[in-house]
Amino acid sequence: MKFRYADRVQHTAKVVLPPAPTNLISFGSGDAFPPALPDMVGAARQALSEFRSEVLQYAPRLGLPELRRWVADYLRSEDVLVTPQHILITNGAKHGLDLTCKVLLNPGDTVVVTKPTYMTVLPIFREYGARFLEIDQDGEGMRTDQLRDRLKEISAGGGALPTLVYNVPEFHNPTGVTMSQHRRAELIELAEEYSLVIVEDDPYRRIRFEGSPVPPVQSLDRSGRVVGIGTFSKLIAPGLRIGWVACDSALIEKMGVLKSDGGSSALPQRMILEYWRAGYGTPHIAEVVSTYRHHRDIMLEAIAAHLPEAKLTKPQGGYYLWLQLPEPVDTDKLLAIARRRGVEFIPASAFYATTGPTNYLRLAYSYATPDAIAVGIQRLRDAITDSAEGRSSMV
Amino acid sequence: MKFRYADRVQHTAKVVLPPAPTNLISFGSGDAFPPALPDMVGAARQALSEFRSEVLQYAPRLGLPELRRWVADYLRSEDVLVTPQHILITNGAKHGLDLTCKVLLNPGDTVVVTKPTYMTVLPIFREYGARFLEIDQDGEGMRTDQLRDRLKEISAGGGALPTLVYNVPEFHNPTGVTMSQHRRAELIELAEEYSLVIVEDDPYRRIRFEGSPVPPVQSLDRSGRVVGIGTFSKLIAPGLRIGWVACDSALIEKMGVLKSDGGSSALPQRMILEYWRAGYGTPHIAEVVSTYRHHRDIMLEAIAAHLPEAKLTKPQGGYYLWLQLPEPVDTDKLLAIARRRGVEFIPASAFYATTGPTNYLRLAYSYATPDAIAVGIQRLRDAITDSAEGRSSMV
Repeated sequence: MKFRYADRVQHTAKVVLPPAPTNLISFGSGDAFPPALPDMVGAARQALSEFRSEVLQYAPRLGLPELRRWVADYLRSEDVLVTPQHILITNGAKHGLDLTCKVLLNPGDTVVVTKPTYMTVLPIFREYGARFLEIDQDGEGMRTDQLRDRLKEISAGGGALPTLVYNVPEFHNPTGVTMSQHRRAELIELAEEYSLVIVEDDPYRRIRFEGSPVPPVQSLDRSGRVVGIGTFSKLIAPGLRIGWVACDSALIEKMGVLKSDGGSSALPQRMILEYWRAGYGTPHIAEVVSTYRHHRDIMLEAIAAHLPEAKLTKPQGGYYLWLQLPEPVDTDKLLAIARRRGVEFIPASAFYATTGPTNYLRLAYSYATPDAIAVGIQRLRDAITDSAEGRSSMV
Repeated sequence: MKFRYADRVQHTAKVVLPPAPTNLISFGSGDAFPPALPDMVGAARQALSEFRSEVLQYAPRLGLPELRRWVADYLRSEDVLVTPQHILITNGAKHGLDLTCKVLLNPGDTVVVTKPTYMTVLPIFREYGARFLEIDQDGEGMRTDQLRDRLKEISAGGGALPTLVYNVPEFHNPTGVTMSQHRRAELIELAEEYSLVIVEDDPYRRIRFEGSPVPPVQSLDRSGRVVGIGTFSKLIAPGLRIGWVACDSALIEKMGVLKSDGGSSALPQRMILEYWRAGYGTPHIAEVVSTYRHHRDIMLEAIAAHLPEAKLTKPQGGYYLWLQLPEPVDTDKLLAIARRRGVEFIPASAFYATTGPTNYLRLAYSYATPDAIAVGIQRLRDAITDSAEGRSSMV
């Protein structure tokens, strides 16, 4: 039977990895630290007894009105001027991005992304037939000067301008860099000038360990050019699978029409509302911030002790470190060696829309215990030594 | 700002309805009867305490292994020969259909549907650029003789054959008809002969009031030509938003790659497993069947008493009656009058991929109370009388 598997996905050839050892320490995906997962039994009991007919029935397609209001209030506390009608509740942030693409992207459209960018969004954009325009970053985030130059060139050459600019301005994934206020203002200016839509993915904002937050790009938006994407995955727990899109209300309505899921489940939505109403939300975030700050510090210390040759920018929040190793090293190959040593990470290649330098890797400090973080970095040290000594074929 | 809203949705012009009165009786959507919604507090407590790190973390993209096994066992009890690797857990049945389209449909492909067909699937197919080939039904379900003739014609004329055949063979939505064993076998034969994929949507199978079930079309499949779509919405509760796809395992893997939601939430998955493990599943279904049988009987009695001119096939299960009124009547217009009388239904026009007779309507007996069902049918009587007397413009 020949299924016509449309060109909606593009598989990248990867090094084939050996099976993971049972004591593998994972710095791979940004999973939550299990002991930091909240106790939601009370919220569920409340939702399933007081609100039984609401949470076990089909839910409103745009989300529970009270949760849309909650999100609007949350965003207004960050100076994003929205009302509940600007909010769509989704099955997590990726679902929000998927709906954004469904409504805004046509095959062949160009999406601006940073180089590197969050790897998980690349297949979603590709599924909608997007091309990519990659823009470099520095310590202030996306280089808007470079974006301006590229847009000028395209415009002068009569080419098709990009449709979307995708970015994670606060604690960028994977680099951890936060985009400066000045750059955010420049990005809004460029969006106005070249009729771009900015997709601002902002999951880590409240996971700040020190320093001051920079107001969201969407707080500078006065003409509905920003689509904000958020999630409760980092505010409460990933397993709730509840996120949101915040944008122009006409666009929200269109996304609602294309939301073919019969409404996101009301159960986790009501559980979130009950959890917050009972006063657990803010203390939970404070605890999570304290936990991940400690994890980050342990990882930074271990890197200073065992990988003095590595370079990185210390992130003020979020889940990740972006490590630069001295060349030559190909972190795709290093990963295979590292897994044999009992540690894993995500190699540079995953984070480029096209190609880029191979001597970077992303380390998530969220999931592993502090002890495992220290051991994992030593294993990474050993793997790098193996790699440099050509021991990769010995095992 | 001009959003390029791709032609991914097609809005059907409908009669603009007045606001619903507060005492509106709804025979519209197939919502569950609220008193029949189960008590899931214990299942949630168990899931959120014993399995906290599982249910609040990111979940496996294809679903919890134990739930995939549960679904495989359920389907095997219906003679569908599948193992857990043939099962993908989704956010409800519509999400399963969406993923099926994503993997199998290319723009311009033809989908075979019954005339009438389940209205909610039409915009999903349209979103993927599908055309439709409509096939009539009779008391034995889809007329496979007509489908054979059309396929022969297309083939002889060198035209493009359809890609998919979509059907709800058991308690068809909206007609309530169950496809005969003979027709199911013919459909499988046609699928073999013309290389079609059959999408079997089977949500109502266990909601049978009398008579014997007919084995699923997929139980006759020996070459992976059937994609089975199922849901816990009717087995337990719609609010769980958990369904499944059962098909060829290579296809399941492809759907998994395109599932951009970070895994369906593990919380409702684990709740379902715990609910069933505690022994509540089977008694709950028995209770629901008894409830909906009573609702159906009340509706049939009320129709016999108040709408003797209406024709229908008594369904042996499911949620709906498909009512044929004497011509001329346009149920789109009747709906506006009926809502002023305080009752609503879904008019014929919603259920055709193209156009069809206007003198039908779908009544859901699932949601309203028995008393409301009796009153609602009287209101429908009054609305039909208003309509016949040209009173529609009086209000």
